[in-house]
Amino acid sequence: MDRTAEFRRWKAQCLSKADLSRKGSVDEDVVELVQLLNGREPYFTTSSCAGRIILLDGDINGFEVQKQNRCWLLVTHKPCVKDDVIAALKKANGDAILKFEPLILHVQCRQLQDAQILHSLAIDSGFRNSGITVGKRGKTMLAIRSTHGLEVPLSRKGKLMVTEEYIEFLLKIANQKMEENKKRIERLYNCLQHALEKENITNSRPKEKIKDKNKSSYTRKKKRNPEEAHSKCFTEENVKERENDDDLGISVTIFPEDY
Amino acid sequence: MDRTAEFRRWKAQCLSKADLSRKGSVDEDVVELVQLLNGREPYFTTSSCAGRIILLDGDINGFEVQKQNRCWLLVTHKPCVKDDVIAALKKANGDAILKFEPLILHVQCRQLQDAQILHSLAIDSGFRNSGITVGKRGKTMLAIRSTHGLEVPLSRKGKLMVTEEYIEFLLKIANQKMEENKKRIERLYNCLQHALEKENITNSRPKEKIKDKNKSSYTRKKKRNPEEAHSKCFTEENVKERENDDDLGISVTIFPEDY
Repeated sequence: MDRTAEFRRWKAQCLSKADLSRKGSVDEDVVELVQLLNGREPYFTTSSCAGRIILLDGDINGFEVQKQNRCWLLVTHKPCVKDDVIAALKKANGDAILKFEPLILHVQCRQLQDAQILHSLAIDSGFRNSGITVGKRGKTMLAIRSTHGLEVPLSRKGKLMVTEEYIEFLLKIANQKMEENKKRIERLYNCLQHALEKENITNSRPKEKIKDKNKSSYTRKKKRNPEEAHSKCFTEENVKERENDDDLGISVTIFPEDY
Repeated sequence: MDRTAEFRRWKAQCLSKADLSRKGSVDEDVVELVQLLNGREPYFTTSSCAGRIILLDGDINGFEVQKQNRCWLLVTHKPCVKDDVIAALKKANGDAILKFEPLILHVQCRQLQDAQILHSLAIDSGFRNSGITVGKRGKTMLAIRSTHGLEVPLSRKGKLMVTEEYIEFLLKIANQKMEENKKRIERLYNCLQHALEKENITNSRPKEKIKDKNKSSYTRKKKRNPEEAHSKCFTEENVKERENDDDLGISVTIFPEDY
């Protein structure tokens, strides 16, 4: 079986299976993006989380434990209020931590080039920790990830270590991050749709001479500033925050420009 | 110029340049790994940070700001004590946050296959957020990253929002994470050295018939449990913590086994 046929088979198989997550369905904030991707020949999503605030209870002996062995005291994909966290914390008897986890989306891609295109759009939309995995059987997966997290220990052996005022302050930050994460998802959706539309126009005029292939919407931009990339997709909205740069202050021999 | 010659040129150029980081040198905990990689034909590192605890002061107006515009109150690549953080916090007049950032290492690779090998070793060593980037000119970069962070807001508009006892508790966790991060770096170093030794043995016996290529040390393991991978590299040490699984609880249509 050739690679394209094999990819089609994987895709059909994957999309026909039941959703195996705890929740059993795709998160609301990422449904449109997932549908847009699954509706296109070269992509299908294999797992997704739109972004969430979670409260986990840890081991009472102070050892770090695997996430699946932690007790999930609270999970929400919507902005969170103090009273819900306070109530959930009452059930903690270990080391509870509050986390904001941004979008994580795994997309299987037909070939490396398809992954490169989507990777470029993801980075331009602010998902700076995205990366490609190529398996030994050639399966090509793009993980779309952001650097935009929060991880805060709140209690030790069941004893709350912070004030209610701090929890309120913390949730304001977590909710802001959730809002910004949502904007990035919308940005990625719009950039992808924009790129796909351009591709459709190009495909519907096969006999027209394309003077400069580098001018296609898929061309990787030199500057990784999401504001700039964003302005190419939607100009009305004002973006306040740029992605944190996790390369800053680290030992740089030289980072090749536009690698 | 063919791809291999071009890669050699990039590598020579990169390694001859000055270190452009704030610090001006490679962090102690990652020097051996960087040297091991740079000493091998298919790799060179372009930037690195071994892992650090940082205290950043934010914008006094409460807006999120770019990391380069934040004031760096404290940076350390060693375990950190409460008094240093308390002293540094006195200089904060915005929203100060304490972060633990694990290893980040960018490695340019000769070709995709070289990146796949190193990616596999990185994931087996616990660096689950690693990923490949392929640029439009074919430059192939592996970013080695961990999920193992910490990000804790400490003050609002210069006012400390937590107790000194909490800071002590927090630093204990940050220092533990730094210790675990160091173990993972050692694990990756050992796994890489082990893989390279096997490759050398194979290369030094070119006429011997290799019965099963899939048995090479570079073969991607089915199970992604770093403890298991680790036990193949060094058996003496007891590893307490497994990597958090950031796929847990998220919407999973189906994640292809061993993609």
